[in-house]
Amino acid sequence: MKADIGLIGLAVMGENLVMNMESKGFTVAVYNRTTSKVQNFVEGRAKGKNIIGTYSLEELVANLKKPRRVMMMVKAGAAVDALIDTLIPLLEEGDILIDGGNSHFPDTIRRTQYVESKGLLYVGTGVSGGEEGALKGPSMMPGGSPAAWPHVKDVFQAICAKVEDGSPCCEWVGENGAGHFVKMVHNGIEYGDMQLICEAYQLMRDGLGMTADEMHEVFKAWNETELDSYLIEITRDILAYKDTDGEPIVNKILDTAGQKGTGKWTGIAALDEGVPLTLIGEAVFARCLSAMKAERVEAAKVFPKADTKIDCDRAAFIEDIRKALYASKIISYAQGYTLMRAAAKTYGWNLNYGGIALMWRGGCIIRSVFLGKIKEAYDKDPELQNLLLDPYFGETVKGLVPAWRNVVAEAVKHGIPMPAFSSALSYFDGYTTEKLPQNLLQAQRDYFGAHTYERLDAPRGEFFHTNWTGHGGSTSASTYTA
Amino acid sequence: MKADIGLIGLAVMGENLVMNMESKGFTVAVYNRTTSKVQNFVEGRAKGKNIIGTYSLEELVANLKKPRRVMMMVKAGAAVDALIDTLIPLLEEGDILIDGGNSHFPDTIRRTQYVESKGLLYVGTGVSGGEEGALKGPSMMPGGSPAAWPHVKDVFQAICAKVEDGSPCCEWVGENGAGHFVKMVHNGIEYGDMQLICEAYQLMRDGLGMTADEMHEVFKAWNETELDSYLIEITRDILAYKDTDGEPIVNKILDTAGQKGTGKWTGIAALDEGVPLTLIGEAVFARCLSAMKAERVEAAKVFPKADTKIDCDRAAFIEDIRKALYASKIISYAQGYTLMRAAAKTYGWNLNYGGIALMWRGGCIIRSVFLGKIKEAYDKDPELQNLLLDPYFGETVKGLVPAWRNVVAEAVKHGIPMPAFSSALSYFDGYTTEKLPQNLLQAQRDYFGAHTYERLDAPRGEFFHTNWTGHGGSTSASTYTA
Repeated sequence: MKADIGLIGLAVMGENLVMNMESKGFTVAVYNRTTSKVQNFVEGRAKGKNIIGTYSLEELVANLKKPRRVMMMVKAGAAVDALIDTLIPLLEEGDILIDGGNSHFPDTIRRTQYVESKGLLYVGTGVSGGEEGALKGPSMMPGGSPAAWPHVKDVFQAICAKVEDGSPCCEWVGENGAGHFVKMVHNGIEYGDMQLICEAYQLMRDGLGMTADEMHEVFKAWNETELDSYLIEITRDILAYKDTDGEPIVNKILDTAGQKGTGKWTGIAALDEGVPLTLIGEAVFARCLSAMKAERVEAAKVFPKADTKIDCDRAAFIEDIRKALYASKIISYAQGYTLMRAAAKTYGWNLNYGGIALMWRGGCIIRSVFLGKIKEAYDKDPELQNLLLDPYFGETVKGLVPAWRNVVAEAVKHGIPMPAFSSALSYFDGYTTEKLPQNLLQAQRDYFGAHTYERLDAPRGEFFHTNWTGHGGSTSASTYTA
Repeated sequence: MKADIGLIGLAVMGENLVMNMESKGFTVAVYNRTTSKVQNFVEGRAKGKNIIGTYSLEELVANLKKPRRVMMMVKAGAAVDALIDTLIPLLEEGDILIDGGNSHFPDTIRRTQYVESKGLLYVGTGVSGGEEGALKGPSMMPGGSPAAWPHVKDVFQAICAKVEDGSPCCEWVGENGAGHFVKMVHNGIEYGDMQLICEAYQLMRDGLGMTADEMHEVFKAWNETELDSYLIEITRDILAYKDTDGEPIVNKILDTAGQKGTGKWTGIAALDEGVPLTLIGEAVFARCLSAMKAERVEAAKVFPKADTKIDCDRAAFIEDIRKALYASKIISYAQGYTLMRAAAKTYGWNLNYGGIALMWRGGCIIRSVFLGKIKEAYDKDPELQNLLLDPYFGETVKGLVPAWRNVVAEAVKHGIPMPAFSSALSYFDGYTTEKLPQNLLQAQRDYFGAHTYERLDAPRGEFFHTNWTGHGGSTSASTYTA
């Protein structure tokens, strides 16, 4: 019997996807470069299942129905290119290569074109949900060759997560790198969501002096509100988890986080697109700062904290923190969606924003009830410029603002760092300000660099230069070309 | 008579550099692709000067003393590569190609290697100071082939700015792209400095209801304090500048600023190096947000501001704003220097941090008295990890903190966006916090992705994984490779 699909790369994500596919009735052929893993797998977890172990790529390909579907679950980067080049001569016109790793979207744009030029079809798909998601139903964000979608849809929509009404958390995202772009933004948002929870935790720990058990109760309660989400849920569970000596294990973990890859890419994409993605930017940088542990220990001695304890009605302040977290989260998603809109324009993708919210609604790390509301907003207005301009979110944020301001102001006074809460508030205050101070900035640029400016009392697109010093001349900088 | 140096590209920066060189006793041959510019120049500003107009690259090269020094002042990007390729066959071993444009440092790394492979020497130099600086003395930051430095030093140090004691604002920065990297960070810091001034201006305008004339007086007074700098000085002058109808012209300028190029590159470099460059990041994003004018006008209607007027002792609050600006500025430079230290390690540059402060001390847009203090700090300790750990800056910041917190808290309460002031404060509060909340974040990553964590009670480098759910298995994510 030939397999429905082949999968290369038997690390935890790959193995779990195979188990998931098999459980949905698909026969899967598997291969791994270190072939002992194939043997261990087929003699272990895969024993008695419709899973075919193969020990060379030729053997893998020979075991597949046509058109062949080959899914690569290997380390993003050069390994994918090398594998593609090895696979192409083994495949035939119309066969489909699938990259399910965390590839950078420009690579997927390039690879789609390359693989198509060889007569094959290409899919670059985001897969989110961690090891458990891979096994039980991940969120999947496929892009690439549109002609490939009908051939992979059955497998993808069978194995992916489903929301309450049974809708699959997997839809076609768009051409070439669109799937990996959306997955990248998902991961950036994940950085933001995690940082927001960390700030709420730090406020309760350092500002209110609460224990892990007390905070466990708070997150448990929050998970019954609009914040209901996977990350709040696991935070609740983490805070309750005790080490062998009965102490909360979270208190024993080193406070240094790594950053590389998708969070950073999201920040770079935002800078490239000129989209103010401040919250995710701060979240990435917060991880960098956390990694400077030795320096922080030294700096904490040089700059001893005044009292970080916030004098307040504890229950009321906890509710304010919840509101600040929720408001900041809305800003983060508003920024992320703005980035996707900008990229769609740049790369010519026709993104379905409601559909993206639905894909994130289940299976993935950022899954939440909240995403259902975002789907509703984009279903109502697919061209919505900013989530804040949706009536539901607009009214919601208005109700959260006083608590949000109170929390950030208290943190500022007590020396508790709130990079994401406060950058979100700055963005909100800037976005809702008709007149920002950049008129002065434009004057400065014209003063020292003759960059010219536009005027409030003249049509847009008409540029003016002032000879500020009386001796700079009237040559503007736009002539600075040879 | 042959010329001491050739210059290609007669836009305003190029023309002014030529005039500057000639005024210092050098004979300069000039060329421009649109040759009518050459004619206009030699018959106009250059008339009667030791400036030789040439009408082809061959003629330019034929007019130069050996080893030939050819400075390119053309648009950064592909034009530089094209020009290099055209020039190489016209030059001889040991000749020196100089790029004085705003090139991206990875291009300069690549070009140095390429030009050296052809037997020539290469210099990529930052030139800052705008058109006026180019004419009267810019700050110059040269890097490239070390063997080129003795051949360009005389011209560069003759034309560059000098500080009070006569020291030139130009020293050799380092190999290949080091000069353009330092220039890029300079520009990033310039973005930050300008944003900080804008936030001070907005607080006075919207929070205190002050007129341009009143703010002119404030900036005039501030320029007599530690804030004494070119940007404060031109802000003072801009605020006093009246339109033909007698109104302050700043009130008529549209509040939308562009961003592309060096500010963005600095943010990307910080993300690549994993250095928390939050203030410059927010400054770049603030420009992006300002550019969304139409959306802001709409959002301002949906979210009308409550009263932005701050109830306070005006004079005292203005002094608090000054202190907040100064403290934030110290953070911005601390972050910028941290980025340079990280890049020096990555690219193998032996940067002289005190020397860089001296180069920025005069001639360039960010020139200030403040940079003299930074030079002192790095002269005292060339390996200083962070400006905040220097005794002078440490004590200074301690004195500024209460005012800084007050200003940010008031802005937060009144809805005045302060992205740079508040991100700087968050950085300070994070940098001086021994225990950040990233222990929770590491637990989350281990929970959903088996990413492992380190413990406070175990040696660094030892990684732990908890089976949080009791059914995730013990496979860690590090095995996620094929």
